Amino acid sequence: MMLTAGASRQGEQLLARLYLALIHAPVYNKNRMVVATSITNLDLHDIARSAATYDVAGYFVIHPAEAQQALARRIMGFWQEGYGAEYNPDRKEAFAKVRLVGTLAEAIAQIQLIEGRPPLRVATDARKYPNTVSYAEMRTRIEEGEEPILLLFGTGWGLLQEDVEKADFILEPIYGPVEYNHLSVRSAAAIILDRLRGH
Amino acid sequence: MMLTAGASRQGEQLLARLYLALIHAPVYNKNRMVVATSITNLDLHDIARSAATYDVAGYFVIHPAEAQQALARRIMGFWQEGYGAEYNPDRKEAFAKVRLVGTLAEAIAQIQLIEGRPPLRVATDARKYPNTVSYAEMRTRIEEGEEPILLLFGTGWGLLQEDVEKADFILEPIYGPVEYNHLSVRSAAAIILDRLRGH
Repeated sequence: MMLTAGASRQGEQLLARLYLALIHAPVYNKNRMVVATSITNLDLHDIARSAATYDVAGYFVIHPAEAQQALARRIMGFWQEGYGAEYNPDRKEAFAKVRLVGTLAEAIAQIQLIEGRPPLRVATDARKYPNTVSYAEMRTRIEEGEEPILLLFGTGWGLLQEDVEKADFILEPIYGPVEYNHLSVRSAAAIILDRLRGH
Repeated sequence: MMLTAGASRQGEQLLARLYLALIHAPVYNKNRMVVATSITNLDLHDIARSAATYDVAGYFVIHPAEAQQALARRIMGFWQEGYGAEYNPDRKEAFAKVRLVGTLAEAIAQIQLIEGRPPLRVATDARKYPNTVSYAEMRTRIEEGEEPILLLFGTGWGLLQEDVEKADFILEPIYGPVEYNHLSVRSAAAIILDRLRGH
C-alpha cells in the first residue's frame, strides 16, 4: 500500500501525518434521520485533488454498501489505468490517496496499522459544539508532528452527533462575513485543509 | 435585480463589494487550445454556496452558448421555485447570487451599472506570473472598501493568458506543503474566498 507523501516544499520539516475521512453512512439527512448517501463522482475527484495538494496521507471514502464501493472503483479505474491515466496523470496521483472502506472503525484500524498508533479524531461540523478548537490551535498541533490526525467529514446533513462527541477535537464551523454557512462538503474540505496546511 | 448582501456579522463595517466570474469560454484545454467548456451542475451549486457564505454580491456564470445558459436556468429553476425552493431554501438563497451572461465584458458592464464604476479585475491562476499579489495584500484592499472587485476563475485548463495579463491583479497560485497544485475550480474558489474574506 503506497501512502508516501509527495516531496515536501518545506524541506525536512516533519508534519504530523494527516488523514481525511468522508463518511457516507451513517449520516443525517435534512430531517435528522440516519441515512446513507451515495458516493458521487465529484466528491471523489475534488477531495482527492485537495488531499494531494495539502499532502494528506490517505483519503478514506466510507460506505458500507459494496455496490457503492464498486462504483467508486469504476470511476477511479478510468483515471488510474489506460487512457485516463495517460491523459491526466495528475488525476492518477490524486486517486492514489483514496482508500475505500466500509466503516470509520476500519479506517482507524488501517491508520493504526500504518502509523503504529490510532489517530486523533477531529470532527468538522457546520454546527457549534461547546468543545470546539480553533484552526490556529489545530494547525500548531499538526506542526508539532506528534500524532496522526484524522479529519472527519460527513456527507448529507452531517456527522451523527455521537460521532462528533466521540471525536478528540471538533473544529469551529466555517464562516465568512455573513450568517450563511451552507458550504458543500467539497468546499468545506478544501477550506479546512487550506486553513490547517496552506502555504 | 436583487444583489443585497446578507446581514453582516461585522456590524457596520463596509467591505468592498466582491463579485466572482466563472468563465466557460474562452478558456484553454489541456493542449492550450482555446475552447468552451460545459456548465456543470456542481459548479453552479458549489460556487453559489461559497459565494453566499463569503458575501459575494454576484456570481457571474459566463457562457456564450444560449443552450448552455438554458441548461443552467433549468437546474437552478428547480431550486428556486416550487418543491426545491421549499425543500431547501438555503439553495434558493445561494442561487439568487447567480447571473448568467455571455461574455466577461457583459459581466463587467453589469457591475458598472450596479456600482457606478467598473470593478478591479483580479485573475486567479495555478501558474505563476511576474506581477502576482499576495492574499494578505488583496484582503487589505477589500477591507479598505474602495472599489468593487471581480475575481476571475477559468474552467478547463484556465484563463487565457491575455485575460490574465489584462487583469489589474493576479493572485498567487494556491499551494499546500507539496508541489501538487491541481485543485478543482470549485475548491480553488472556496479557498480563495476564505483567504480573502474568511472570518
